[in-house]
Amino acid sequence: MSKLYYGVAYYDEYMPADRLAQDIAMMREANINVVRIAESTWSTLEPREGEYHFFHIDRVLDAMHAAGIAVIIGTPTYAIPAWLARKYPGIMVTTPEGQQKYGRRQIMDIVNPDFLRHAEIIIRTLLAHVKDHPAIIGYQVDNETKHYDNCGPVMREKFIRHMQETFGDTDAMNRAWGLDYWSNRIDDWQDFPPPESTINASLACAFSRFQRRCVTEYLAWQAALVNEVRRPDQFVTQNFDFEWRGYSYGVQPRVDHFAAARAMTIASVDIYHPSQRHLTGKEIAFGGDMARGMKGGGNYFVMETQAQGFAQWTPFPGQLRLQAFSHLASGAVMVSYWHWHSIHNSFETYWKGLLSHDFAANPTYREAATIGADFRRLAPHLADLRVTNDVAILVSNEAMDAFNAFKPQGTEGNAYNDVVRRFYDALYEENISVDIINDVNDSSARYKLILIPALYAAEDALLHRINAYVEAGGKALIGFRSGFSDEHVKVRTCVQPGILSRCCGVRYSQFVLPDGAALRGAALPLAGSATQAEMWMELLTPEGADVLAYYDHPEWGSYAAVTENRYGRGTAIYVGCLPHGDLIKTLVRRLGGEALCSRQSAQGFPLVVRGGLNPAGERVRYCLNFSGEPQAVTGVTGRDLLTGHDVGGNWDLPPWGVAIVVSQP
Amino acid sequence: MSKLYYGVAYYDEYMPADRLAQDIAMMREANINVVRIAESTWSTLEPREGEYHFFHIDRVLDAMHAAGIAVIIGTPTYAIPAWLARKYPGIMVTTPEGQQKYGRRQIMDIVNPDFLRHAEIIIRTLLAHVKDHPAIIGYQVDNETKHYDNCGPVMREKFIRHMQETFGDTDAMNRAWGLDYWSNRIDDWQDFPPPESTINASLACAFSRFQRRCVTEYLAWQAALVNEVRRPDQFVTQNFDFEWRGYSYGVQPRVDHFAAARAMTIASVDIYHPSQRHLTGKEIAFGGDMARGMKGGGNYFVMETQAQGFAQWTPFPGQLRLQAFSHLASGAVMVSYWHWHSIHNSFETYWKGLLSHDFAANPTYREAATIGADFRRLAPHLADLRVTNDVAILVSNEAMDAFNAFKPQGTEGNAYNDVVRRFYDALYEENISVDIINDVNDSSARYKLILIPALYAAEDALLHRINAYVEAGGKALIGFRSGFSDEHVKVRTCVQPGILSRCCGVRYSQFVLPDGAALRGAALPLAGSATQAEMWMELLTPEGADVLAYYDHPEWGSYAAVTENRYGRGTAIYVGCLPHGDLIKTLVRRLGGEALCSRQSAQGFPLVVRGGLNPAGERVRYCLNFSGEPQAVTGVTGRDLLTGHDVGGNWDLPPWGVAIVVSQP
Amino acid sequence: MSKLYYGVAYYDEYMPADRLAQDIAMMREANINVVRIAESTWSTLEPREGEYHFFHIDRVLDAMHAAGIAVIIGTPTYAIPAWLARKYPGIMVTTPEGQQKYGRRQIMDIVNPDFLRHAEIIIRTLLAHVKDHPAIIGYQVDNETKHYDNCGPVMREKFIRHMQETFGDTDAMNRAWGLDYWSNRIDDWQDFPPPESTINASLACAFSRFQRRCVTEYLAWQAALVNEVRRPDQFVTQNFDFEWRGYSYGVQPRVDHFAAARAMTIASVDIYHPSQRHLTGKEIAFGGDMARGMKGGGNYFVMETQAQGFAQWTPFPGQLRLQAFSHLASGAVMVSYWHWHSIHNSFETYWKGLLSHDFAANPTYREAATIGADFRRLAPHLADLRVTNDVAILVSNEAMDAFNAFKPQGTEGNAYNDVVRRFYDALYEENISVDIINDVNDSSARYKLILIPALYAAEDALLHRINAYVEAGGKALIGFRSGFSDEHVKVRTCVQPGILSRCCGVRYSQFVLPDGAALRGAALPLAGSATQAEMWMELLTPEGADVLAYYDHPEWGSYAAVTENRYGRGTAIYVGCLPHGDLIKTLVRRLGGEALCSRQSAQGFPLVVRGGLNPAGERVRYCLNFSGEPQAVTGVTGRDLLTGHDVGGNWDLPPWGVAIVVSQP
Repeated sequence: MSKLYYGVAYYDEYMPADRLAQDIAMMREANINVVRIAESTWSTLEPREGEYHFFHIDRVLDAMHAAGIAVIIGTPTYAIPAWLARKYPGIMVTTPEGQQKYGRRQIMDIVNPDFLRHAEIIIRTLLAHVKDHPAIIGYQVDNETKHYDNCGPVMREKFIRHMQETFGDTDAMNRAWGLDYWSNRIDDWQDFPPPESTINASLACAFSRFQRRCVTEYLAWQAALVNEVRRPDQFVTQNFDFEWRGYSYGVQPRVDHFAAARAMTIASVDIYHPSQRHLTGKEIAFGGDMARGMKGGGNYFVMETQAQGFAQWTPFPGQLRLQAFSHLASGAVMVSYWHWHSIHNSFETYWKGLLSHDFAANPTYREAATIGADFRRLAPHLADLRVTNDVAILVSNEAMDAFNAFKPQGTEGNAYNDVVRRFYDALYEENISVDIINDVNDSSARYKLILIPALYAAEDALLHRINAYVEAGGKALIGFRSGFSDEHVKVRTCVQPGILSRCCGVRYSQFVLPDGAALRGAALPLAGSATQAEMWMELLTPEGADVLAYYDHPEWGSYAAVTENRYGRGTAIYVGCLPHGDLIKTLVRRLGGEALCSRQSAQGFPLVVRGGLNPAGERVRYCLNFSGEPQAVTGVTGRDLLTGHDVGGNWDLPPWGVAIVVSQP
Repeated sequence: MSKLYYGVAYYDEYMPADRLAQDIAMMREANINVVRIAESTWSTLEPREGEYHFFHIDRVLDAMHAAGIAVIIGTPTYAIPAWLARKYPGIMVTTPEGQQKYGRRQIMDIVNPDFLRHAEIIIRTLLAHVKDHPAIIGYQVDNETKHYDNCGPVMREKFIRHMQETFGDTDAMNRAWGLDYWSNRIDDWQDFPPPESTINASLACAFSRFQRRCVTEYLAWQAALVNEVRRPDQFVTQNFDFEWRGYSYGVQPRVDHFAAARAMTIASVDIYHPSQRHLTGKEIAFGGDMARGMKGGGNYFVMETQAQGFAQWTPFPGQLRLQAFSHLASGAVMVSYWHWHSIHNSFETYWKGLLSHDFAANPTYREAATIGADFRRLAPHLADLRVTNDVAILVSNEAMDAFNAFKPQGTEGNAYNDVVRRFYDALYEENISVDIINDVNDSSARYKLILIPALYAAEDALLHRINAYVEAGGKALIGFRSGFSDEHVKVRTCVQPGILSRCCGVRYSQFVLPDGAALRGAALPLAGSATQAEMWMELLTPEGADVLAYYDHPEWGSYAAVTENRYGRGTAIYVGCLPHGDLIKTLVRRLGGEALCSRQSAQGFPLVVRGGLNPAGERVRYCLNFSGEPQAVTGVTGRDLLTGHDVGGNWDLPPWGVAIVVSQP
Repeated sequence: MSKLYYGVAYYDEYMPADRLAQDIAMMREANINVVRIAESTWSTLEPREGEYHFFHIDRVLDAMHAAGIAVIIGTPTYAIPAWLARKYPGIMVTTPEGQQKYGRRQIMDIVNPDFLRHAEIIIRTLLAHVKDHPAIIGYQVDNETKHYDNCGPVMREKFIRHMQETFGDTDAMNRAWGLDYWSNRIDDWQDFPPPESTINASLACAFSRFQRRCVTEYLAWQAALVNEVRRPDQFVTQNFDFEWRGYSYGVQPRVDHFAAARAMTIASVDIYHPSQRHLTGKEIAFGGDMARGMKGGGNYFVMETQAQGFAQWTPFPGQLRLQAFSHLASGAVMVSYWHWHSIHNSFETYWKGLLSHDFAANPTYREAATIGADFRRLAPHLADLRVTNDVAILVSNEAMDAFNAFKPQGTEGNAYNDVVRRFYDALYEENISVDIINDVNDSSARYKLILIPALYAAEDALLHRINAYVEAGGKALIGFRSGFSDEHVKVRTCVQPGILSRCCGVRYSQFVLPDGAALRGAALPLAGSATQAEMWMELLTPEGADVLAYYDHPEWGSYAAVTENRYGRGTAIYVGCLPHGDLIKTLVRRLGGEALCSRQSAQGFPLVVRGGLNPAGERVRYCLNFSGEPQAVTGVTGRDLLTGHDVGGNWDLPPWGVAIVVSQP
């Protein structure tokens, strides 16, 4: 579309007074060119069953159109009206903690027929009303949809039916899941126990996968409703979010992003991240790489990110610019703030928008205005960036569920994402940009290096394809516990790391916790933090592989910790514990990291260099300083689009500064 | 009444054997002159429905009267009999955790009609039985009453009806509370959702306020029953308690003390506090100042305080005396221990009374006997102390609810009380005694200084009255987040600190967390702990005010942290973060603290000087040593009532020692 | 039986493929001579109600018998089939957290008639099927049985009936339990409130005791079913486990081991313990001493202990041997691993067996094979060890419940066991082996020293018997809070430590927390860690006793902390706080510890020496090195059975090494 969108979520409904004209004037001043409206406003649209009001929708659409600001319509279903919850008590989702009470958003049962019937009515009614409005550039279905830990009766019945289809008879299921254990056998489908209280991780992970499948189906169903009215030039999207640790952290456990994105014409994501002294750009990069990945490499929208946000996020001067351009550096074509104005009542009063509660221009708004101007001015150079990598990292919801079902002692929360981010962050700090993938297959030959962290559960075929990738000349860095169980989370009965033993040339049958152990370099000299061993410790015995490091431990010192194996024309490094980022960097360098196309700079964090090629074929490199000190840049030569000056040799980026250097590729 | 009461709670019901004569002999030996009986003994009074037994009541009343010991009758309703709970299962309170099971006290639904009907019967029956007994000096209704987090069906219906009366229609409520947000609109009263699960703090705070109103009504209802039989010389009181942190800490969130005390002829309070090495007298002073405040300045009863209490409270030699006189120093006219004997079974077995489980005289009892003797001997000098202050601190249940609904990240528990106590304690340590008030109005002109911590939610009129107080010559020290929202907890849409911007001459629209920031003195030199900034950090811009301190921070260093503004004939200091006690002391000094009448000594903690005028017009100063080291006293001249010796110049208080110095005013 | 059993739990049911022949071959190679089967396999035995399958049972029995491996049959009741839970929803246990959902084991209501009826049918059916098989050497009833915090309707009704029988009328109960307090009186049995929500510890502890009684009855009922078919040479046992802290820690709160073991012909126990750097042998010794104690001193089975276990337990080379022989050193005649193979699905996937998931020989299995060979070779010397001690430690489930109901502030979890283990571990570290007893009576005269930690609740008669034991010449080391309450957890109204004041010659009525206090030696010089005072601090006044130590504290320094009293021909030391292990060792030495027969070595931990006499009358001493460094052994002379060499003088044990020295007694 050769355009950069700079936007905000806008809620005319929430305004304490009529602000529309003033707001639009301030938006125009800041070069805001898109607003998202209507998501989460069901009770305003339909205050009583069957009674519809389009007052806010109509006036915003008209006013925005008049001002040249594009509009995204969100379907309003992710927060339900009080009347709906009262009339159909079954709509409130039942989770392992019991049925939820009305109040929060995102606590409905998305497979409940009453909910779906009413959702369909309000969606169809809204779409019919707005579909011809010229302001609308596209639709967002629902918002940050998840399954909300739904274990209600409808979900349960659907799951059991799905298992019947999957296994045919209960015997096959008993075998796959090992249900003989602790008398958990099921010999009649009607005896199927509550999935949420099972102690069988095979059953629990199958249920978790099925819950994600319901999210995929729900979003596809909404997208299909939109598709009935959508013009070809309009998009349909969903605003995907990530594992939340007070900010966007890792792979989303409750949605299969790759599957759910299929029904969308473009991916959108929520990216919230630490700021101030804690701003690193890692979440911006990770979220963007995931967003590209879910649609197989295209551009994406940052549908929500923070303007001021929480008190701990209010950006330092310069950081809002740094953040905005960091999004573009990963391939975003929209940066949209949640939200325009700070809300005066309720849950997100302290999740501040671009404007504070007083609606006046403030330092953050004024900085946004410079971004808007730059977006408009530089869109021809910056829009539709093509990001191409020869490094990928393999993630898997199934591996996550299984890994986390059997977390090492002393590990808290979503340990899988801890591991994934350990590998991801090391590459980020090395300025090696990556694709995030959920499969290794024929098309993976385009990668020189694939990182495979914590691939705990995987079907045989995927492991064989990984072997084939290496055999054909690929390089792989494979993390501990990979290959351990099959797709039913049944531990393999062969030697570990299972089928991957072949490409890795290593085996083990025992593992311990580090408890004071470290690494001792062998073929690879190691020092400092690179010698740390965390979380897990497989007692590896090479079978053909070279030992890069042993454990440094009085009793386990003869076991290998890191091995390297030539397999076919490729190489696989296997790591039996959670390595420090410094060791990951060392291993990636050993696997040819310096020569990768993905490596955008020989420098490293806090100087971050990311980018790609623009439609004109120019190389665009975003030079981003994630620190409060000036940083010298070397090896980046070209014209800085922001200043218009040529740069080259050894030049300086100011604190929290950004430069966008174009050059011929 | 020109009398000091020294008392105990007495439970003949709980005695493992008949001890009455022995107990009374020991009480007389200790000059115990009042006992409280009957509260919490419903099941003994009415072991089966409609079957009444006054055995214990009668014999205790008669025996005490014969011994010249006065009796307070407590209505027995704060713990219900098992038969009542079984017969009317709805009486057990429903809280957000569900309906409570029988066992503990204070878990009944105080708006349940069945409970109220039975409570009325037992109260009327008891009162009719005892009303003419000459031993009785007054009545206590219920005990430590609160709403017990009641969100049961009756409470809920009453709340909705009250909101109907308050708002008239749902639209007004939707606007006031911002219910459009997240589709929370209510367009039909029957759709009103469960208040306990709302994410709308406006609704939640309105519900909390209503729950407190039910406590007020319940206590007034019991007081009215008492008033039907009460003689004019008898009092009716309620034993109010405080926010509990294992001891009496701060403003009680579940009762509006000021409103509830109106139905009482005198206020009583529970004061439990750390002891041994941790005894500071702060809770004694705070609880006493609150107790005076709730009845607009009069004397009060300490209806419960610890004798031995928990193992961690067993007083050091001397501390029981220090505590007793500390109560008098704040205006108490009764010090009554909970309780006489230590209880041999159940929950409070380790909440020991004056006697241990063996009923023998012990060191604590023997020290009490010296207190009783002193109380009797010195009552003419010490009773009915008039405590007058020219400093006040403004507290508000509504501000508390609202502040705590939006606690700064990293803050735990009742943060409002953390802030209030930070201000209160600094004054206490400076020997500046205060009134605790819940309004600023015309009568506030008697204060030279008002401290206003964390007044997060307040109606416009109160803020205007604060402005007027300053304009007319008052001095105010106003803490962060004051003025931020209106009485519906809707954030004001004007510049912050809202209406208080006028008297403070300062504005802000952004705030962050300190995260390493400190304060840097400007017009006011600052050093040491006074430079600490905690909890919150408003980025202040003066609009007329002088900057007393800036933030010491690489990015926010140009924003003010503490400002001072002349407004009319007065001065307002505004502090944008949670200040250290040392800064509060510095600011109070700057506002003329040295010259305040409330400042009773130029010395400070651990030497505490508090007091007032006695009915004879003498100045009575309690000199209290809250340390295990002797403390020199200066500037206190007069006669020490305890020793009969004159003191003056520079004299010594022994460890944990007390002197009561009378002088002409 | 002159035999040592070396075994594994074996689950043919859980095998992913037919492994029986291979497994038996590997077992024989390792000299495994017993397997336990069938426990927890109800759903395989009876996949649908009334439909029985003995496939796995039959083939394992036959194959084991053919291989000369003995079999223990477990009744399968501790995990129920899904069909049973679905058909009788009441079978799922109701705990204070509500009714449990199907999934885990050990969540049935063991007093539910439906459960009992179906349990009886499956037990009888299984027994009838297998009873004549020659492989079977005995039966285990259920497994690790407990009451599962059952407070369901049946349990409650049974409890009330039992209280009716105990007290006759409610008045006696009201008095014993002090129910007048907080209106908790019960004047009609039908008003009996839910025991699980009571705040009356007398009631709560009576309920806890009753719950244990139900376990005793349940196990006796199963044993009676077994006894109907059991041959005289077959045993019936139950696998008892201990308070669990991630490993077997202390006295089991939910079973009265002494009472429940009466229905068994031999005691079996579960012993899991820290390993690797954290292996001390303490849990092995404690669990073994308890196991001997429950049957009054005989040999016992270690029915379950870890082979590889968790990742943090995988044994260092040598540790599996050290562990196995440590069990024998306490009198075990069976060491059986849970379990043979590691399980591929479900909850205990990471609780690894002797084999890893790949079924291949691994270092742990190979070490086990050496143990099996030694067991076989040395059984004539090592089986049926007679362990005789002149030191005992008194434990009590009733004291535990009561002590923990009134835990000192700051104490978490099962504080009673913390105290018991403090005393136990000090003796263990001194190589003083002990009997664990639950009564002091005429037969206690065989002990020279009895340790009595935390005997908080006890009937008068027991305390009188303790006095009599001392009077007759015994020595006692009595810990704080002993004697404090009666068997109804009513605090005694006499001077403390109650009836024990007589033998201890000391009294107190006040107690505090240490909060910085230490001990100051008086008649006994103290230094270093022996001066520590923890948890509790009774302010002791000697009445005839000598003061061994005072408190070191500015205010409480005149009170005694440790006293010693001659009483009759014996001596009692009383300690008013939780002493450090070093003080316990000092006090035990003072009480003649060096001369005790139980003292097996003048050396101490990590060199552990334990043992007894074998049937041939030889003295067998296990010398166990619980450290990663070699340890010199002195004072142990004889022939090392493992090497066949004579040892004597000063000789070395290797890291984690073991020697078994036989000599004439």
